Amino acid sequence: MVQATDMPRNESGIATVVGILRQQLGDRLQTGEAIRNQHGHTTTYIHTQAPDAVAFPRSTGEVAEIVRVCAEHKVPVIPFGTGTSLEGHVNAPAGGICVDVSEMNEILGVQAEDLTVVVQPGVTREQLNTHLRDQGLFFPIDPGANASLGGMTATRASGTNAVRYGTMKDNVLSLEVVMANGEIVRTAQRAKKTSAGYDLTRLMVGSEGTLGLITEITLKLQGIPEKISSAACSFPSVDAACQAVMAVIQYGIPVARIELLDEMSVRGVNAYSKLTLPEAPLLLLEFHGSEYGVTEQSDLFGQIAEEFGATGYQATTSTEERNKLWQARHDAYWAALQLRPGAKAISTDVCVPISRLAECVAATQAKAEEEGLVAPIVGHVGDGNFHSLLLIDMEQPDEVAKADAFVGWLNDLAISMDGTCTGEHGIGQGKMPYLKKELGPAVDVMRAIKAALDPDNILNPGKIVAAS
Amino acid sequence: MVQATDMPRNESGIATVVGILRQQLGDRLQTGEAIRNQHGHTTTYIHTQAPDAVAFPRSTGEVAEIVRVCAEHKVPVIPFGTGTSLEGHVNAPAGGICVDVSEMNEILGVQAEDLTVVVQPGVTREQLNTHLRDQGLFFPIDPGANASLGGMTATRASGTNAVRYGTMKDNVLSLEVVMANGEIVRTAQRAKKTSAGYDLTRLMVGSEGTLGLITEITLKLQGIPEKISSAACSFPSVDAACQAVMAVIQYGIPVARIELLDEMSVRGVNAYSKLTLPEAPLLLLEFHGSEYGVTEQSDLFGQIAEEFGATGYQATTSTEERNKLWQARHDAYWAALQLRPGAKAISTDVCVPISRLAECVAATQAKAEEEGLVAPIVGHVGDGNFHSLLLIDMEQPDEVAKADAFVGWLNDLAISMDGTCTGEHGIGQGKMPYLKKELGPAVDVMRAIKAALDPDNILNPGKIVAAS
Repeated sequence: MVQATDMPRNESGIATVVGILRQQLGDRLQTGEAIRNQHGHTTTYIHTQAPDAVAFPRSTGEVAEIVRVCAEHKVPVIPFGTGTSLEGHVNAPAGGICVDVSEMNEILGVQAEDLTVVVQPGVTREQLNTHLRDQGLFFPIDPGANASLGGMTATRASGTNAVRYGTMKDNVLSLEVVMANGEIVRTAQRAKKTSAGYDLTRLMVGSEGTLGLITEITLKLQGIPEKISSAACSFPSVDAACQAVMAVIQYGIPVARIELLDEMSVRGVNAYSKLTLPEAPLLLLEFHGSEYGVTEQSDLFGQIAEEFGATGYQATTSTEERNKLWQARHDAYWAALQLRPGAKAISTDVCVPISRLAECVAATQAKAEEEGLVAPIVGHVGDGNFHSLLLIDMEQPDEVAKADAFVGWLNDLAISMDGTCTGEHGIGQGKMPYLKKELGPAVDVMRAIKAALDPDNILNPGKIVAAS
Repeated sequence: MVQATDMPRNESGIATVVGILRQQLGDRLQTGEAIRNQHGHTTTYIHTQAPDAVAFPRSTGEVAEIVRVCAEHKVPVIPFGTGTSLEGHVNAPAGGICVDVSEMNEILGVQAEDLTVVVQPGVTREQLNTHLRDQGLFFPIDPGANASLGGMTATRASGTNAVRYGTMKDNVLSLEVVMANGEIVRTAQRAKKTSAGYDLTRLMVGSEGTLGLITEITLKLQGIPEKISSAACSFPSVDAACQAVMAVIQYGIPVARIELLDEMSVRGVNAYSKLTLPEAPLLLLEFHGSEYGVTEQSDLFGQIAEEFGATGYQATTSTEERNKLWQARHDAYWAALQLRPGAKAISTDVCVPISRLAECVAATQAKAEEEGLVAPIVGHVGDGNFHSLLLIDMEQPDEVAKADAFVGWLNDLAISMDGTCTGEHGIGQGKMPYLKKELGPAVDVMRAIKAALDPDNILNPGKIVAAS
């Protein structure tokens, strides 16, 4: 498993910067060990590399000032949202200053007529949706965790709703970014479309803090649908469930969510969330639309599901029942952990063309069984994206090595199917070797961009393009 | 009006490269004056700057070889699709080699199950849709002209369907690109979503040939809707029509097209296409969906239209009637030219947040009248994007100056409304001064990227970021 490499530290620069920032920020610069470790160690299996200090700026101006001070002394700057990333994104392999944006959590303005909102990066997904509810609006991207919108932007997050509403790349209109030299740049205006030069918005979305620090985000919103219904049904096999998903996508049913839980995941969810779902591969769905539209979608899906041998299909428009189902889905990670108490979960994140989904999921299950790995699967299958959660005893080197080999095998398989090693978690430290396998010379292009925009390599060093 | 600046020419390099390429390509390297002029002069009002030669490669390998030869001798390379761009994109201000991709026009593969297709850059939009029809699929982006998909990608084109299906940025999955050093890069795999590093796909979409030459494009496709209906209705004023559009968007009706023609445009269209539409501001719509869904959308729109004083609203599912209406819309440019025989049309391209649309269109009409300019308006109003077509006698310097001032005034107005000077035409040469006004320091970031990826400035020089 990834033991992230340490990088050379600029000790004197770091000491100087910590001194200057302490003067400027007072107790909004923290250097205690616990808080530093907490900001390196997230929900990841990657070894923690703590920053030297954690800053809590309250404005774009303060972020810019922090970056300017760090730039002058060539000290790393690592942005931090809520710390739910999975590939070592917030580690500080060369030390430096972690910029925690949790105090930049203001919703700066809702433009209801334009279906847009401007937020600071520390605003969380749930905070935004609570704020919007009274106006009949919502922000659809839902990675499960109550992540910050800054972090979601930086990692190009997606999740359960992406099959209908796209990923962060599709839902960010414009960004304010502090560049490596401390300059503040706005990437686009608030118009819905533009051909005004290079798409810096999309370049920053998914750049994981390596090209700039996001200080303001303009997002697209959606009207809360007139009607929402959800449904669940069990399939005789994972293959049958995936075949049904493929048919749904090819038929063009605009499902809002279509999620797979394999038999083992269902078992975990039943135990954890006190449900009695049949222990068989399950699809969970949600339909958004008009009264009639939702019924139409749901009926069509019912026909497809039946064709692939599904049983127990039922749709519901009860909010309570729906919330219960989706809460169970969101808790699948915690439920999986209970399948093997004491284990850590290592999540894979491959995404393949939908035509290869059934084959890829089946091969993954077979390989895990062959290797004797406990690895329940959940997936945003409408996008061809699924996660195998490897439950590993990190104290057993053999097991860790086996998991590591499994991750490599699966990434290679996905890449060979014209898929990617990461549908939504990002590269961080953990996926760097696979990025190279996946895109080859394109990584050199990324590296040239990184060098041009951050010549001293102070912005979240050791991530994405850092592997040689 | 823009008299594009000439740039210093590398005469000896150009002569050498023309010699080498002639040997390699034979009569697929053309140097006749007519063909050279045709490749600089497109549907633009900007002064022609012809390249020194036009190459017609047939493969990615040939494109890479052309770029390598040009790179070695520091000679400009200008990609060319069908030449329908409007802002001097294909001009050769420093001379050099135009790479016309019209012989790279193969559809390399349709992956119907994945709703994707892989094409060479010279494939045109109509060619692709003709090829797809039998499979029940279509590619939705429709800028009007039968442009090449390479050109559409390079300029981040959109058009009438973008309100529902997005722009090229939303419909390109992956690209193969020849970089400035001749290296061939693939920007992404064919999976529907990815978090694998920087979004080079989106960086290349809209880069107008200044960062690389697109040699292969993987596009998303859509299933042909079960039902299509279209509709037209007249409004008492442009303001009322725009208010109706705003209501449609805010209500979330998933219209496939919603186009505005102002009174003057309708007059032109009636004359040119032999129609008898009422001479009043007109909205043209198209609805895609199921039998019931289309009726539901159309009825809802009817109610909104009535609320804003519309008359004569009628929807039709007749393919013949629909094609007639949309043909008229697509011919609006040619129809406008007939309003003032001998004049040239200068198209503006602002796009504003939808809440500002009515105000922006009304101000544009008032200003044109005040200045005595003949300037019919058509617009992709669901996106807040509209074109004022200034009909100008280019022999009258006063009139040209007045048009120039008008374009500047309108771009400033849109920018002041948090909009853009270009919704879909791109920057090219013509919009460079406005890009700077619009995005300020972001242009320096773009320039740094350009310098990093094309240090000798050989890829379509003098465009987007070339202004100091």
